[in-house]
Amino acid sequence: MRILLTNDDGIYAPGLRALRNELLGLGEVTVVAPATEQSAAGHSVTLLTPLLVNEVFEDNGKTFVGWAVEGRPADCVKLALLELLPDPPDVIISGMNAGSNAGINVLYSGTVAAAIEGAFYGQTAIAVSLEYDKKIYDFPKGAKYARQVIEQILAHKPPHGSLFNVNLPVLERGPIRGVKVLPQNVTPYQEKFDRRVNPRGRTYFWTSPEFACPEPHPDTDVTALAESYITVTPLQFDLTSHTQLAPMKEWKWKLE
Amino acid sequence: MRILLTNDDGIYAPGLRALRNELLGLGEVTVVAPATEQSAAGHSVTLLTPLLVNEVFEDNGKTFVGWAVEGRPADCVKLALLELLPDPPDVIISGMNAGSNAGINVLYSGTVAAAIEGAFYGQTAIAVSLEYDKKIYDFPKGAKYARQVIEQILAHKPPHGSLFNVNLPVLERGPIRGVKVLPQNVTPYQEKFDRRVNPRGRTYFWTSPEFACPEPHPDTDVTALAESYITVTPLQFDLTSHTQLAPMKEWKWKLE
Repeated sequence: MRILLTNDDGIYAPGLRALRNELLGLGEVTVVAPATEQSAAGHSVTLLTPLLVNEVFEDNGKTFVGWAVEGRPADCVKLALLELLPDPPDVIISGMNAGSNAGINVLYSGTVAAAIEGAFYGQTAIAVSLEYDKKIYDFPKGAKYARQVIEQILAHKPPHGSLFNVNLPVLERGPIRGVKVLPQNVTPYQEKFDRRVNPRGRTYFWTSPEFACPEPHPDTDVTALAESYITVTPLQFDLTSHTQLAPMKEWKWKLE
Repeated sequence: MRILLTNDDGIYAPGLRALRNELLGLGEVTVVAPATEQSAAGHSVTLLTPLLVNEVFEDNGKTFVGWAVEGRPADCVKLALLELLPDPPDVIISGMNAGSNAGINVLYSGTVAAAIEGAFYGQTAIAVSLEYDKKIYDFPKGAKYARQVIEQILAHKPPHGSLFNVNLPVLERGPIRGVKVLPQNVTPYQEKFDRRVNPRGRTYFWTSPEFACPEPHPDTDVTALAESYITVTPLQFDLTSHTQLAPMKEWKWKLE
């Protein structure tokens, strides 16, 4: 099995390294990942600047790991599929992200966007993220669980272009209670900014790290993660509101 | 009516200026938009750098236009709603973008992401984009059409949090044939990279501007735009594949 591995935390991120170590047990892994951290990059792509790429090796240059790309996660997947990989991969794995990507964070996430980009190209793609608490991550332990979930997803032989979002709960909170297949929560987050004034009197804001989802819908990715389940959400990228489409087709329009 | 206007081409973009001129006929318009071009920013947000804001005036400082934000389109909407606007807006308009945002471009688009961010906050939001050919745009003419479509959408009193993606066809191709309500096309684009080598021997790539959707599904935003219709697509931000959810709930999982 040929695996393309990417992420949004950057090619040298410990979450990617831990996941790569596990995936090497499943097949041939090639990494094409951002050179630098691209958290919250969403589905941005690079149009205005060139995408520099660099080959990355380990073991003092003896083992080829893949390519570092000075771009976004979605750029990495495009470049991998169109330019860098000699053969198309059998699956694209994105992660393991430092922090969960559940609820509406799915839309901010560069990790998930990389997987969606793969699905644009008809590839099966799985985004994997590890929830954290107090910046403690046991990536090697998380990667062992991630590998098992990935293996079981692929054992079902999902059709080409299938897209999955896997989230692992905080591992330090206690034992994992199992795996649940659930929808993305869509209720809002409470967030805030820290307003400051610079020495020249100009106002600026920092996005606060305090970011909570106070009222998640039950039986969604957000609630199950909080109950120490691993969540798996099948995703798609048609943003059309099909429920609104039919009534809106009856609207009469007038243009002058 | 209080209107929050944003975009991804930047606060000084001619598409925003033209749309603002039309929207001033509908109510009070406050602009909170990126200081610089943010095309293809997707739903990225700024976590690692501060968001500097600057008040923008016109008529030699006599008229307050709004705030320029050194951040992403989604940052602008967050900041506007949480910090900058004295009262919540009645509607958020994002655009008018230079270039259509149809098909899977919906996911790359900063223009659409700004509207989605508004919907996260329960606001009604409308993204507006103008398709182009050979970099010719008649924004004032497009904005007159956009205003009519926006007025008619709002006349239906959509529930809070409603989200619409409006695309105008190339105006120079001939008369507009009407307005169609259609889903987002989901077939892939053909795209490519221009591979180059820098003077130090390092490979880099430019994302090519050649970007075509060779096989769109009939009766989608992409096909109707090509036939000179204005398209309106109701959007939502739940990426769950609900069709896959039920069968996947039957899967048996095993963790070691």
